[in-house]
This record gives sequence, C-alpha cells and structure tokens, in this order.
Amino acid sequence: MNKTDITRETIELILRASTATLTTVLNKHGIRHSGMHRVAPLRRGMKMAGPAFTLRYIPAREDLKTEPTDNLKDPQRIGIETISTGEVFVIDARGDDRAGTLGAILATRLHMRGAAGVVTDGAYRDCDEIADCGLPAFARSANSHANTTIHHASEIQVPIACGGIAVFPGDIIAGDGDGVVVVPAHLVEQVAVEAAEKEAEEEFIIKKIRGGASIIGNYPPDEATLKEFESGSVVQ
Amino acid sequence: MNKTDITRETIELILRASTATLTTVLNKHGIRHSGMHRVAPLRRGMKMAGPAFTLRYIPAREDLKTEPTDNLKDPQRIGIETISTGEVFVIDARGDDRAGTLGAILATRLHMRGAAGVVTDGAYRDCDEIADCGLPAFARSANSHANTTIHHASEIQVPIACGGIAVFPGDIIAGDGDGVVVVPAHLVEQVAVEAAEKEAEEEFIIKKIRGGASIIGNYPPDEATLKEFESGSVVQ
Amino acid sequence: MNKTDITRETIELILRASTATLTTVLNKHGIRHSGMHRVAPLRRGMKMAGPAFTLRYIPAREDLKTEPTDNLKDPQRIGIETISTGEVFVIDARGDDRAGTLGAILATRLHMRGAAGVVTDGAYRDCDEIADCGLPAFARSANSHANTTIHHASEIQVPIACGGIAVFPGDIIAGDGDGVVVVPAHLVEQVAVEAAEKEAEEEFIIKKIRGGASIIGNYPPDEATLKEFESGSVVQ
Amino acid sequence: MNKTDITRETIELILRASTATLTTVLNKHGIRHSGMHRVAPLRRGMKMAGPAFTLRYIPAREDLKTEPTDNLKDPQRIGIETISTGEVFVIDARGDDRAGTLGAILATRLHMRGAAGVVTDGAYRDCDEIADCGLPAFARSANSHANTTIHHASEIQVPIACGGIAVFPGDIIAGDGDGVVVVPAHLVEQVAVEAAEKEAEEEFIIKKIRGGASIIGNYPPDEATLKEFESGSVVQ
Amino acid sequence: MNKTDITRETIELILRASTATLTTVLNKHGIRHSGMHRVAPLRRGMKMAGPAFTLRYIPAREDLKTEPTDNLKDPQRIGIETISTGEVFVIDARGDDRAGTLGAILATRLHMRGAAGVVTDGAYRDCDEIADCGLPAFARSANSHANTTIHHASEIQVPIACGGIAVFPGDIIAGDGDGVVVVPAHLVEQVAVEAAEKEAEEEFIIKKIRGGASIIGNYPPDEATLKEFESGSVVQ
Amino acid sequence: MNKTDITRETIELILRASTATLTTVLNKHGIRHSGMHRVAPLRRGMKMAGPAFTLRYIPAREDLKTEPTDNLKDPQRIGIETISTGEVFVIDARGDDRAGTLGAILATRLHMRGAAGVVTDGAYRDCDEIADCGLPAFARSANSHANTTIHHASEIQVPIACGGIAVFPGDIIAGDGDGVVVVPAHLVEQVAVEAAEKEAEEEFIIKKIRGGASIIGNYPPDEATLKEFESGSVVQ
Repeated sequence: MNKTDITRETIELILRASTATLTTVLNKHGIRHSGMHRVAPLRRGMKMAGPAFTLRYIPAREDLKTEPTDNLKDPQRIGIETISTGEVFVIDARGDDRAGTLGAILATRLHMRGAAGVVTDGAYRDCDEIADCGLPAFARSANSHANTTIHHASEIQVPIACGGIAVFPGDIIAGDGDGVVVVPAHLVEQVAVEAAEKEAEEEFIIKKIRGGASIIGNYPPDEATLKEFESGSVVQ
Repeated sequence: MNKTDITRETIELILRASTATLTTVLNKHGIRHSGMHRVAPLRRGMKMAGPAFTLRYIPAREDLKTEPTDNLKDPQRIGIETISTGEVFVIDARGDDRAGTLGAILATRLHMRGAAGVVTDGAYRDCDEIADCGLPAFARSANSHANTTIHHASEIQVPIACGGIAVFPGDIIAGDGDGVVVVPAHLVEQVAVEAAEKEAEEEFIIKKIRGGASIIGNYPPDEATLKEFESGSVVQ
Repeated sequence: MNKTDITRETIELILRASTATLTTVLNKHGIRHSGMHRVAPLRRGMKMAGPAFTLRYIPAREDLKTEPTDNLKDPQRIGIETISTGEVFVIDARGDDRAGTLGAILATRLHMRGAAGVVTDGAYRDCDEIADCGLPAFARSANSHANTTIHHASEIQVPIACGGIAVFPGDIIAGDGDGVVVVPAHLVEQVAVEAAEKEAEEEFIIKKIRGGASIIGNYPPDEATLKEFESGSVVQ
Repeated sequence: MNKTDITRETIELILRASTATLTTVLNKHGIRHSGMHRVAPLRRGMKMAGPAFTLRYIPAREDLKTEPTDNLKDPQRIGIETISTGEVFVIDARGDDRAGTLGAILATRLHMRGAAGVVTDGAYRDCDEIADCGLPAFARSANSHANTTIHHASEIQVPIACGGIAVFPGDIIAGDGDGVVVVPAHLVEQVAVEAAEKEAEEEFIIKKIRGGASIIGNYPPDEATLKEFESGSVVQ
Repeated sequence: MNKTDITRETIELILRASTATLTTVLNKHGIRHSGMHRVAPLRRGMKMAGPAFTLRYIPAREDLKTEPTDNLKDPQRIGIETISTGEVFVIDARGDDRAGTLGAILATRLHMRGAAGVVTDGAYRDCDEIADCGLPAFARSANSHANTTIHHASEIQVPIACGGIAVFPGDIIAGDGDGVVVVPAHLVEQVAVEAAEKEAEEEFIIKKIRGGASIIGNYPPDEATLKEFESGSVVQ
Repeated sequence: MNKTDITRETIELILRASTATLTTVLNKHGIRHSGMHRVAPLRRGMKMAGPAFTLRYIPAREDLKTEPTDNLKDPQRIGIETISTGEVFVIDARGDDRAGTLGAILATRLHMRGAAGVVTDGAYRDCDEIADCGLPAFARSANSHANTTIHHASEIQVPIACGGIAVFPGDIIAGDGDGVVVVPAHLVEQVAVEAAEKEAEEEFIIKKIRGGASIIGNYPPDEATLKEFESGSVVQ
C-alpha cells in the first residue's frame, strides 16, 4: 500500500489506539517487534500518528562538515522543508545520545510546516522548549550538543533503524506514553480497524475489572464475556 | 520470622520511613545492598510497603506459549488472582525492558484485589494508565510490547532477583521517589523501629540545617545534639 | 583567568544562556565536548551557573571507612562546609549510580551555605526532598543507598571527570533542562558575551519561525536576516 | 520427550553439528532465539553436547551466607555431586560477571564425574586451569572473585535463563567456537537428524565454493545442486 | 580522489603501517576518530588493507523476509558476488551482535573472489572456520544465529556506520591486532606516505628504547634524534 | 605499612598465588571487592606482582593539549621515567576504551626500566607488540587511537579507580589469567603468607579431586582432610 492511499480515517483510528494495542495487533500479523526500545515522549500526554519521513545520520567526520550548515544541501534541513503535513520526522541516530539531533528552532519549524511529530533514538537539545512548542516529540534523552558534534546527516527518505526497529518512509508511526510503534504501511488499514476493535474490547474489560470482576473469564474474555461485549452492555 | 507474624504496625513504620533511611538501617544489620538498581516510580509521590509476592519470568520460547493466555495455568495470572491484600507484586524480568511485564488491566486488577504495589526490573505497558490507576508502581521503563514478546512466566512465590537484589516471598518491599528497597522478613520488626527513630532524628537534624546550623556537630549528631534531640527541643 | 576574576555579570550572562547555546559557542572556541553525558536535572525548571567546587570519589574499600563519618576529615563534608557562595558542587562518581553521592540533609546544607547548585554523574538519595529544597540539582538517577556503599571521598578541589567531561575547580558550570555544560574558566568571559549575542539572535530567529518563516535564509541567518536582526525589527 | 529417552546417537549427531547449523534447524521449527548471547568457549576447539543440569543463582545477601560452604546444603555443591554422566552443568548468573560462578576445583570435579561441559552467562575463576582440565567450559568472562561475593545458589534443576535463552533441565546444550545453543528436549531427535543432513549439505557446498563456484545456484542450492549433492558427487 | 585512482603502491604502504600509526597520521589531517570501537580480528596476525565495499543492515522485520534467500535480490548476496578484487567487505550491523552477519560459506566465497578482508560491528557465525579460511576477518564477537534473525540487508555501496566510524564506499579500510581504521579516500595517498615515514621513525625509536634509551629526547624525538634518524644510524 | 617495608619475599609469595586465592584471602580480611572488573591479560600466561605506581587520566579537552607531548611536563611520561624497578604502572582510564592509554614504545620503556607490569581499565594500542615485549600487560581491550584522543594525563601517584577497585600508590597489584587484584599495602604481608598456605591446601585438594575424590569432606576440607594435608600426604 502506498502512503498516499492511507486515508485520514485510518490515521485517526491509529491515533486513538494505544501503542500497546498496536503491538498486540501487529503481533497477530506476524510482526513481533514493532515498538522502539528506549524512546520516550518528552513529557506526559504526547500522542501522535502519521506516515514516516525518514532521516539517516551516520557518524560525523571532520572532512564532511560545512560551516555554516547549507540549508540547500544538508539532508536534515532539506527534510524539514520538504516533509508533508501530517508526516512524522523519524531520525536514525544509531541510539547515540551524546549530541542532540535537532533543537527548538527546527522542531518549531517542523510544527509550523504541519508535521505530526518527531522521533529519534538519540537526543534533542532545547528539550524543554521542544516539549512546549506543540509538536509531539519522542527521544532517548536530552543533550545540549549540536548534532554535528557526533552526527552527519546522510540521506532522507531511505529505510532506517530507529530504537531497534526498521522504519520505511511511509510506515505509520504512532506514539504515546509507552513510546513509539511502527506499523508497516501495507498492514495499516487492517491494523487500524482491528486496533479500534481491540481498544473497545479492552475498554469494556477494564471497566469490568474496575467494577471488581476477576480476570478469569474476562481477560482474555471467554465466550460469555465476548457476547456481553458485543451486545453492548457495559458494567460500570 | 514468618510474614503472617509481621504486624500492621510494623508495615506502617516501614511505610513512613524513606527508602534512604531503610538502606542505612539495613546496613547496620550487615545488609549492604538492599536498594534495587534502575527501578523507579512511574510518577512522583508513589509510596509503598508490604510483603513480597514474587513472580519469575524466564526468556520466552516459541514452544512454551499458549494462545490465548490460560488464566488457570499461567503463573502471572494465577499470581494476580491469589496475591493477598497488602502484598506487593514483585516481578523478576532479568532487567530486560524490551517488553512490558504487565499492563493497565492487570495492574488495575492488582489494585482492586488490594495489592500494595507492583515492582519490576523490566517495563510496563500502558504506563500512563497504570500511573493513574491508584496502585504504586515501580519499573525500569515503559514499553508497549506484551510480556510474552520476550518473557515467559515461570513460577510464583520463589526467591527471585529484582534490580540486582534478592527477594524472597514475604520480604518487605518499600518504595518511594528513590526507588525500591527489600527488607528481609526476619529483620523487619527491628528495622521498622530503628527506621522510625532514625526518621525522627533526621527530621530533627534537617530542621536545624534549614535553620542555618552547620553539619559539624549535627550530622552525624554529636552528644550535645543527641541530647537536644532526645529532650524534644526542635530548632525551627 | 582566575575564578576570583570572573564577575557577577559574566555569571549572569551564562545563567541566561541555554546550555545548548553554550556548547555551540564553546565549539567555536575549539571545545567540542563540553556537555555532560547522562546528567539531568531532578525536575523541570532547574537553571544554574557558577564556578565549580570539585569532589572526587574513588571506589569504597572496607579498610578506608570510618564509622561514623568524621566531618573534620571526610573530604565530602569538608567540601560542603568550605564551598563559597555561588559555587557549584560537582561530584565525580565515575558514572556509577549504585549509591547516592549525597542526600537531602547535605543538599540542604549546600543550599543554606549559598551554593549555586550540585552536580554528579552518579545518583542522589532523598531525590524528591532535594528537588524541593531550593538547590538546582543534576544527576544520573536516584538511589537510596548511602554514598559509602560504593564510594570513598578522596579529595576536594582537584581536576575531575563528570559525565565524561573534564572539570577543573573554578570552571563555570551551567545547567538547565538539557543537562550540564562546563565552560573552561579562561574562556568564560568571551563565551558569556558571545552566548548572550547568540541567544538574542536565536530568539529573533525562533520568533520568525513561529511566524511562519522558512529556515532557508533564517537558520542559519543569511545577510538579509542578520541585517534585519541587527536593526532590531522582530517578526511576531 | 523425556531426557532419558534421548539416545546416545542423537547426542552424537548434535555434537557433530555446528551451533550455527543448530540455530538454523531450530529456526525451521519455529524457535528463533536459541543461541546464548555473550557466552564463549574458554579457548578454541571446545565442543560439547549433552542434557542440561541447571543451577540458579540469585544475588547474594549477607544473611543467607554460611561460612564455610556446606556441601550437603548448598545447591551448587549438591548439583556438582549429583549431575549425571554426559550432562552439561548450566549456571544462570543473570549475566553478572563481577564474580566467578565456580573455579578449577569444582570444574575438575565436574569433569571427573563425567559431565559433558559447563556453561554460565557469568564468569569463572581459575580460567586458565579450567581451560586445561579437560572439561569444555563456556562463559562470559574470567573473574577472580568467589561466587558468594555476588551470587547465592538458590536451586538446582529448575528452568533458568542463561545468556538470554530459556534452559529447562534436560534440554540439549551444544557448544563450539560460536558459543552455546539450547535445543528443547522434545525437538532434539528431529533437530539432530536434520542438522546432520544440513551439515552434509553445507560441507558439499563449501567444497564447491572453495573450488571456485559462485553462491548463485549453490547457496542456497538450486534443484541442480541439490540433485548433485544427493547423487554424492563432490567438487574438490 | 576516486578509488580507481588509488594505486597498489598506496595500498601496500597502508598495509605495512600499523593501525595505531594510521590514526596518528589521520589526526594530523584533522580526523580525530578513525578507529572502530569494539571491532577486533578473529585471531592474532590478521592484517588487511583495501577499499571499502559497504553493506548496510537494518533491523529484521517479518514481512521483509524471503525464504529461501534470493541471491539475485538480496543485497548481501549481490554484494558478495560483485565486490572487486582487493576490496574489503564492510557491514553496518548497528553494533548488534545478537546474530551473525555472515558465516563460513560466504566468507570463503569472499576470499575466493579476491576480497582483501571482511569487517562488521556485529558478529559472525562459524567463526573458527572463518578464522581459518584465509580471509582477514574483524568483528565484535561470534554468534551462531543466521543474520536474518535480527538483520535485514538493505543496500550495498552507501555510506554506513561501522564501530562508530563513518565508512564511504572506496574509503581505505586497514586492520591489524588493534582493530580497524578508516582512511577517507581523498586523504589516502598522503596518509600512506606519511604513515610509512612514521613507521620508519617509530621503528628507529623503539630500537633505541629496546637498547636502553630514555623516552626523553627520543619519543617524541628531539632535533638530535631526528638528525640521527635521518642519517640512517640505528642503535641495536 | 610503607611500600619500602614490603620485602621481596612477600612479593614472591603474592606472585606465586593465583588472583582467585588472593580475593579469597582478602575477603577473610573484610575486603570483599579486590578484583578489577573487565581487565584481562593481553595473552595467556601473563603473571605479575608489584607495588602500584598510579597514573590518573581525566577526559581530554582541547585547551589542555600540548603538541608535541612534553616529556618533562606530561604526567604519563614523567611516571614512565620515574617508576621504580618492580613496580606496576596502573592507569585509571575511567573504563573508557575508545583510545589506547599507551602503546608499544612506552610499554617497552616501562619494561626496560624494570617495571613489573602495566594495568589499565581502558585500552592499549600496538597490543600485539606489547604482548610480545616482555612486560605483563592487562587491559580492557585494544584500540588504535592515541591516548590524547579522549584522555588527559592529570597526575601520578594519587589514589585512583581502576576496573571499579580503589588503588593507592604502593598497594600490591597482582595479575594472572583471571585479571588483576589489588592488595592493600598494610595487609600484604599477612595476605601473602595466608595465600601461600591456601595455595598449598588447594593444590592438595585438586590433586585429590583429580584422583577421583568427592568434594564432600575435601572442599571445603573437613578435619580429616586437613589433618591429611598437614601431615603432608598427597593423593596422586
């Protein structure tokens, strides 16, 4: 499935699902590892979904550096000015958080251009400002160094690794308090529908549990509970 | 000392002590390492004390998995439905946080059943929901994957390792902003009393320090300060 | 430059700059690595600048320990009672966070004595109390164990390593949400002035970005933007 | 399959297969992770296969220690004196190599009692002597400390984790220069036969490759190559 | 400089230099980090130099896998059959050694095709066979799992990261007992000449040191020692 | 005890003991952690004992570097030219092995000056040459970079950390295949005698074990075995 074929409705369903639900649904489709490792939101309440726009960093090397950065040649800068509305900027930093991968000015520009979020398995600088700029942002940590201290922007829109998970341009990236999950583009429509169903079911179950029910018979639900769920009755 | 012999008063004293005070008192009893490494509360203000109910995970293996989870056979599920009021559910995840060890539904069920808290040296999924469900919860990190992605529940109520510390069923588990401490069951009564004394003394000392006193003579307290403390006078 | 020669105005300029700006300015002076790795504020909003007062820990050894701590001989305690107003207490813990490096009483005493902050690449105990005591505090993590569990205070006011960065007594230590940066004392006056200029320029740029401007021409600023900046006009 | 049902012929086939071949065959049976991580032979040429006899360590705690070790009560010592001929002693050290898990005297005793090997994800002490004592030995590293410095022997013959892989008593443990692989007992007969076939096929292929053949058509083998292999002709 | 312009003489000079000498010479050209981290030869005596032929792995994902491997489409296989004589096959494994990146058959094929060596920051399987097959081979460790367990071959001949160092196709890769160094292609001619000079000088110096000379005046050499060196006299 | 009071006989006894025996004896004197973590000999058969001569590295900083190294001012160089015969050069590299701490020329000079060995918790460059130069050498790994890439020599003959263990100048440093152990100077005479006794006892025990004896009654030895040992009879 081409990313241009993914509807707004599908993205909305993914956005409403928790990342925990998405990993469970993906597992049923044979994708066992979809959640990034050690990638967390900058603060509570960040929620995000959209197609991946990827940037790949390799280690910095002194002979590759231009001073100052050339916005027309540097892949990081080109990416920021070409990302489409609703896309998530995903940066492969090789899990190396000894420098930021971008700071508040670039995060703000991503937000102004309509990006749905930004993700890296490295760090950001200006983390407090980024957390407040309106853009959902996920990273391994904060670090005050500029990206060129240890990173060199190599390419945009190629397959990357981020938090130990493969990300292809156009894969759907979802984030919440548990971190970031990658939904392969060709599976997203089906995953979105199944995730919505699973969310409804889990909402039904947790209400029962909050009401004092045992997990036995309810989680996983047995036939009686499923029938109860499907009939729309909810214990409160 | 059998856990059934530990009084509610003892647990209350442990609950009022900080984990820092508990490690200091335990050190005087020859227990040098009692605080778990890299295990933190999900959010500020979580405070917990109670006897350990243990669960041991080993690495997952495809031939061990049942689909769906059988609540009557899976040790994790059996543990959740058999834990007693006031106990702390402690999960040995080998420090591996590449998957959650449980999520919001099970944490809520633990809370409804009267558990005093939940601890793992791995991760949880649905961390924001768990943080809000009322159960003090401590972990290494958040991760959206289901536990069976990398863990297999092996047994309940056996000695385990958690955060680098040995935990026996019935040991008293205390948690606060500094993380989680294990008090061996047979020492808890004495530790609880000594911790209460130490807390009072430290409260007395910190008030003096806030009032401008030097640490010299006060921390550690010399004889004059101890006499002052014992006479009940407090600088404010 | 001797630390006694560093003016209050210089410290104020450093305090107003972000650590991200400081690393950028230091990089122009040839100092590529100035930001500590894995050292973070205990909570949001902590901001700090001042000359370093250093403490070096080495690993604990049973034959070195005195019980109780002797305030007149222990370098940690001597340091706390001799640090000058406005200085930052910086502790080399070898990145080992298996014990606290100090707790609430000593942090409070540092605050009362006028210290500008405390930094370690290890842990603190009583982290919640420290976060509330008024002293900006930066560390790798929280840990309930007393420092002597794994550390032995060796000397004060010697060159140390902290978070992978060299710190000499009198170097200027700055901290914010991105962590802690070390400004070599002999560079601080020039760095302070340049950082203030850079902050103004970045503030000008981010306002343009928030107003919808592209990074092209603005970040890095081209001649037109620089002229606009220097003429004082700000897009809002 | 019960370990007593595993024939000597099966063990011999496993012993002749490389661990690389075993992981490939296990993968076809759905077992994706069977090779321990960071567990290596003490020296080149060590080759081993046999059923697992397991020992579980938990972290040491001062109140659990007896001095001197009681051979009739300590699970490590009981295990060494009850392991059967041909079994492999597998020690769960939680990947912690800050102490040895056993030394030359115990390794020699294992060898004299007919053990087929010893494996740990921790360390050994007396590593040079162990490497020369005749017993194939695999570990993460060498460390001169006695096991009780950080480990407490908890139980024998329970499921354990070793090098990130689940090991059940009776699972077949195979080791060579690439490390150690765990073959679930119930799969071993089929795995042994398939591994022997795969070894023959790979031997045939590598001879062709050494003779100058391309991998195309040969690795993986196409129908012509398979026919050639099955007809017994070998390029040399 | 284009790799086709690098002469055999230049490669020979690089081959004769130690990697320690190469990092020193590169440092004089402003390249401070050129030696890979945690990448070692499979056994003593391996020495290698040649232009890089690069392969990039990303994390495996179940929907990307073909079974069996298609030699005409898989970048790893295409790389092995298109590498030129004298080139070094360099594999970006993200430092992840939980699976091999190739095994004995493919290493042998590389050797037969005239490759000068193979390098990865991950692992190999069949390490003992590879160590004996004639091809200099460098890696982080040994691991029995097939590459597809955790890796997916993404592309050949793109810039990669290996052991924390950027590698561009055509950069000169040199290896010895200290590991692997990357010489940027455009610097190699000058580096080769300077390294040969430095090797001669260091050989001269170490002979003096072995003869009992002090480092003072000799290392670094003062003018007298340099004159002595240039006049060709050698202490023995 | 002053290092000048330690006799050659004492050093000889320490040299003949294994590091495993030394940690056991030290444990009886209350020193629980004496063996360095992740510090290994460069090759098999290295055995070493002597008083520590210490060097402390801190992280490199561009403004501290002199080019070329000044042998009369650089603490590393001063140390190498002032170490006494029989001493062991011990380098605190903060466990950071991203650069060598010294290379073959300096190791050779240490050997020529009569040093008993060299130890670091970082890396060496020219490792193969060092392994062959006659000086017992212990490190974490090999790395081709010069020390100044990441280290700055700060002082000699101060207390340091190495491999997680405190080392004071004059402490006795012993090394073998299991790594390196630190014997506090004031304990060495007694430790040496007890270690010699323990070695004899263990030699007696392992011969019995090799002869087929059980560990029961022999390891630890019961009264009968001790009497047998003391009477000098040895099973062979």
